[in-house]
Order: sequence, then C-alpha cells, then structure tokens
Amino acid sequence: MTAIYQQRITALKEQMKERQIEVGLVTSPKNIYYYTGFHSEPYERFMALLLDGRTDQLSLFIPALDYEAAKQHSFVEQLIPIFDEQNPYQVVKDHIGEEIKSLGVETKRVTLHQQTQLNNHLSISGYLDIGDFVASQRMRKTPEECLRVERAVQIVEKVLAEGMKKVAVGMTELELAAEMELLMRRFGAAGPSFSTTVLSGVKSSLPHGHSDEKKLQWGEFLLIDMGVMADGYCSDISRTFVIGEASAEQEKLHGIVRQATEAGVRAAKAGVAAKEVDRAAREVIKQNGYGRYFNNRVGHGLGIEVHEEPSIHENSELMIESGFLFTVEPGIYVPNWGGVRIEEDVYIGEDGQANVLTTFPTELMSVAVNSYS
Amino acid sequence: MTAIYQQRITALKEQMKERQIEVGLVTSPKNIYYYTGFHSEPYERFMALLLDGRTDQLSLFIPALDYEAAKQHSFVEQLIPIFDEQNPYQVVKDHIGEEIKSLGVETKRVTLHQQTQLNNHLSISGYLDIGDFVASQRMRKTPEECLRVERAVQIVEKVLAEGMKKVAVGMTELELAAEMELLMRRFGAAGPSFSTTVLSGVKSSLPHGHSDEKKLQWGEFLLIDMGVMADGYCSDISRTFVIGEASAEQEKLHGIVRQATEAGVRAAKAGVAAKEVDRAAREVIKQNGYGRYFNNRVGHGLGIEVHEEPSIHENSELMIESGFLFTVEPGIYVPNWGGVRIEEDVYIGEDGQANVLTTFPTELMSVAVNSYS
Repeated sequence: MTAIYQQRITALKEQMKERQIEVGLVTSPKNIYYYTGFHSEPYERFMALLLDGRTDQLSLFIPALDYEAAKQHSFVEQLIPIFDEQNPYQVVKDHIGEEIKSLGVETKRVTLHQQTQLNNHLSISGYLDIGDFVASQRMRKTPEECLRVERAVQIVEKVLAEGMKKVAVGMTELELAAEMELLMRRFGAAGPSFSTTVLSGVKSSLPHGHSDEKKLQWGEFLLIDMGVMADGYCSDISRTFVIGEASAEQEKLHGIVRQATEAGVRAAKAGVAAKEVDRAAREVIKQNGYGRYFNNRVGHGLGIEVHEEPSIHENSELMIESGFLFTVEPGIYVPNWGGVRIEEDVYIGEDGQANVLTTFPTELMSVAVNSYS
Repeated sequence: MTAIYQQRITALKEQMKERQIEVGLVTSPKNIYYYTGFHSEPYERFMALLLDGRTDQLSLFIPALDYEAAKQHSFVEQLIPIFDEQNPYQVVKDHIGEEIKSLGVETKRVTLHQQTQLNNHLSISGYLDIGDFVASQRMRKTPEECLRVERAVQIVEKVLAEGMKKVAVGMTELELAAEMELLMRRFGAAGPSFSTTVLSGVKSSLPHGHSDEKKLQWGEFLLIDMGVMADGYCSDISRTFVIGEASAEQEKLHGIVRQATEAGVRAAKAGVAAKEVDRAAREVIKQNGYGRYFNNRVGHGLGIEVHEEPSIHENSELMIESGFLFTVEPGIYVPNWGGVRIEEDVYIGEDGQANVLTTFPTELMSVAVNSYS
C-alpha cells in the first residue's frame, strides 16, 4: 500500500508546485486517511497533514491520544502529537515557522474560526483551495479501490438477504435496522457506512426519513437503504419491498422506479455528462406522470465516504470518466402515501463502460408476514 | 416543547440585537435541532435557520427531500425547500435581499468556501460569530434536558449489563460491539451516540482505538466505551473489565483510575474552574507514578452532541455553573501493555452540586470465560 500513498502525495505536491502553493494543510480526516492510511475522527481536536513544499517535509499533526494508533497505521512517519493543553496553531508555527506565502487548504473544510486562528499565529499572504483537487483525485478510483467498494457491496447484500428473513409484522423499524447492523459486523464489516434506514408504509415517502418505533404492517412498502464500511470503503444500496401482497398501485410505482434505475444505469458511461444519467432516470418517472414526486438528484459518488464526488444531478456538465464510482437511485415519493427507491452502485471501468457492483434482485419482492415475538 | 424553542430563539435574537447583528444564519444541524426540533444530516446540501432581525422573520431553508419531514417536526413554520439543481445562496438572496450590514454565523462551522459563496451572492459588510453564544446556550441545560440525558444513560447501562453477559473468549471486539448496538435499539435508543468501542488486551492502551477482528482472550482487559442517542440526547460511559481473573498489576491500575475518577467527580461543582476537575483526577494518577500515561483532557460536555461545551482540561479557567453536564473520564494507557478508563456523566444541579447520572458499578469486574460459538 505504501506505493499508493506515495503516488497520491506526489500528485498533490505537483499540483501545489504548479499553483505556487508553498505549504499544503489537509485537515479532513477522510482525506488524511486517503494520503496516509491512518484514520481517526478527532472531533474538535486539531489534526492535519502538512506538506511543506519548501523543504519537501511531510508531517502529520495528531491529537496526542492518537499517537500510538498513528504509529501503527500512518504512512507518514513524522508524527507530531498535540496535547490537549497545547495550542495546535502554536505547535504548527513552531514546526514550520511564521511566514507562509501561500497556504493550500480545503476551503470546503476550513472554517472562518480556523482561519482566524491561523492568521493569529502565522503570517500567511494568501489562501488557495486544494480541496477540489483532492476530491478530483479521490473521484478517479483505481480498480483496487473499486474492489474494496465491491467487497463492501457484497457484505451489505449478504446482510440484506439474511436480514429480510427476519422481517415480521409487528417488528419496529428500529429493530429491523438493528438486526441489519448486527449482521453487518457478523459478515465482516467495520459497521454501517451511515445510519441504516428502514422505512415502512407512509414513512417510505420521506426520502431522508429516520427509522423509529413504528411497527411493520401487512401490505406496506418496506424501504431499506443501507451500506457498510469495510476496509475503509463504503457501499450503499436501496431496495423497496412489500410486506405481504402488493397492491396494483404499489406494483405500478415499483415498476416505474425499476425502469428509471435501469435507464440511469444504461446512460452511465465515460464521455457522457453526469446530467444525462439523472435525466435518463428522471425522464422515465416524468413520462409516467410522477415527475413532481422525484425531487432530488439521482446519485452521488461513493468510496471512502458514502457521499463524495461526483454529484449526479440534472444540471451537472461534468464528463463521466473511467474510475468514477457512484450511485444511481431514482425514487418516487408520494406524500402521505408511500415511496419507492431502488439504488445501484456503478463503477466506470477502464474500458469506459459501467460495471454494476450491486447484484441484489430489483424485482418487487414480497416479504413474510409472520408475527414478531 | 414549543415554548422552549421560542425561549431559545428569543435569547439568540436578543444577543443579535445587542451586538447589532442584522441577520443570523445557523447552519449546524445540531444547532438547528436545538432551535427547531427538526433534525437532519444534510451532508453536502445546504440547510440553514435564518433569523432576520430587520423583519423579525424566521425561516428554515432545507433540502427539498427533507420538506415533508420538516413539516412534521420543525417549530419554525416558514420552510423553504431547496432543490438539488438550485443554487442555495441564490435562494437565500431571493428571500432576504442582497444587502446585509452584519451577518451572524457560527464561525466554527462556516467554511471559507461558504463565505466565498455568500460573498458572491450577497453584499455583506461584516461577519460576526454567533456560534460561541449558541454553544454557551446549549451548555446551560435545563433539568428537562438533563432528564433526557439521564434516560440515555439508563438505556446504555441496561445495554452494558445485558451485553456483558454475552462476552466470551474467542468472540471478536466487533461482534461484541454489534451485540451492544443491537441491545441499544432493543432497549429504546435511536442508536449509538458514537461508534461503540470495545478494546481488549494491548489494544485497550489506545485511548481512541477502533474495535476490529481481534478476539477476546482470557486474562485481558476489556475496555468498553459507548453511549446511546435517545430522544435527541446522548449518553457516554466507559468501564474496564477483566476477562477471567485479574492480575495484581491490572487490579492496581484499575484501582488508581477508579480513585482518579472519584476525585474528578468530587471536584465538580458550581463556582469551581473546570481545570480543577481535570487536576483532581490527574493528581491521583501522577502521585501513583503514571502521569505520563494520561495524555488527554479529563472530560467533555454532553447533550445533543456527544462532544460539546464545556471542555474539561488542565488549563480551562471556565467556571462551572448549574446546568453544565459533562463526562469525567481519566485513564491510564500504557503503550503495548494495556489501559483502563472509567467514565462518569455528571450534571451540575440547581443547587450547584454534582449529580452523577451514571450508576453502573465502578469496581473491577471479572467477566465470564465461556467459549464463543
């Protein structure tokens, strides 16, 4: 793995050189993981990977309590622990000096407060964004990265298949979500890549709804949206089931969404603008008269984070390239009635064609109506 | 509940008026929950509560896909959905006009990129921080808020008691973590308040270590750090066990940490600086010769978030007040050997005295040595 980290860092250094950025400061934990192999969530503590283009030094500033873990996992060898009673900006200053002509930061990550702190301790002539470059690096995934997502997909699909056997009338959404998350660990995931979503009946009409104490009932839609984190990479899948027997209306809605997902996936290939994927799926829903019930973008990138670049939306002119990995997840959400979402994960291979990583059937499936004890 | 939201918003409005802040823009999802009762994680989408001091209007900008959920939960009635293909800053401008003399934002939340976006669409003469005021509001909790944390503590303690019955030699850390998280849901929590930490043996020496496939072994320390989210509030508890029989060295280490936690809790009361709580606990560890193995602050605030104000560290001059709710969690972490942490949750009541919300025994407990199948 060390070769990969070196390559990634070299590319960032070249970018900095080109744009005359003297010092680069990477503070997003996920970006730090991408460059070093060390992952930690420091919460409000300071953590940063520092690339000093003047001396070619590479240093990782970490909370002191992460020092041992970083020694084990970080590709970057110069580790600078920061103790809780220290001012991290003072530590940075002591390390690299006061004067910086241009500092590269992730402007979508660094806050106004952090900028004030930096300015209080250092003399920085200018700030430039390096975050978009890092995001674009991460967006172009190697086949090895795709394999890690694929493994996360395989785990979540095994979880879904096993977990659906446990569904029963009277069980709450949260209980089913918990069963799924237990299976995730049992099948080798580090955990869910986001809070597992189980929505039933009318609640399936909330594209971002939360599972709660609502009990599963006969005849309802059961929408499951979940993913796992395994070996640092995420999966994300949605399927919508019916508990017991589907009504004609439920079958109709599900069939339209299924066609929409297929149309989106078919449109996905290198050389096509991202908006075409959104439009292909959206068109199916519009033509069937449900256009006003699909109010969000069709997909998002997936990798180290469950939401990353590229964003696949109606107006995105971004050209799809080999190495992109993203979801295609159209839905129809009828307020106070119910909703359907079917989500696939797609990787654009070296030949520019889409590989659908998700393999779980997309047909409308009925689930058991046993009672829950 | 609506009276509470009104009070909180009124206090923020008064603060804005005092400091001549024309418009306030609250963007932290947890702060939005605090003022409106509506909670959502919008990821990269735009979400903001806007207080216009000029017109006394209150509006909540939300991703369109959250519109139905917000209608159900938000105290603020004026909801402005933003569709994925819209530019949210343009929507804000259309809503409140271009000219703003002074904009109040959470400077620890708003990024340089967002500031650029705001400046591109609006003519803002100055930015002022309102985040510290919001954090200080949230730091002073009502007895009702304490009750919600207490309920989250009760659930996690029930989980801990039940979950420890499942411990067996050969089980992996992740499997035990998953069992705990399953129990959380079964006992009424929405889920864990942070990723459940189960560390065994040498790994217990990592204050921020992650559970993995490591199997639990006879004679090892078993450090559990976990909490639940219930009704919007968090708990956070740590206990360290021994699998099988404790060695003299394990008993000694555990005994010191136990004394340290007790000393920290005893020091906690209104009118005392936060640093005194840290020092009281730290002194016990130092006097026993383990000072260099306790490298982090003794505690942190707890409420809507699992880490919030106040930070309880060695140099904090902040005076403790009634309504503060925080953890006391000293530890000793001996690299390559093992570690112990014992964590209590403390609420400073209206009489200025500490109420320890956690009730799980702190004595060193041995756990079963059954094999895991």
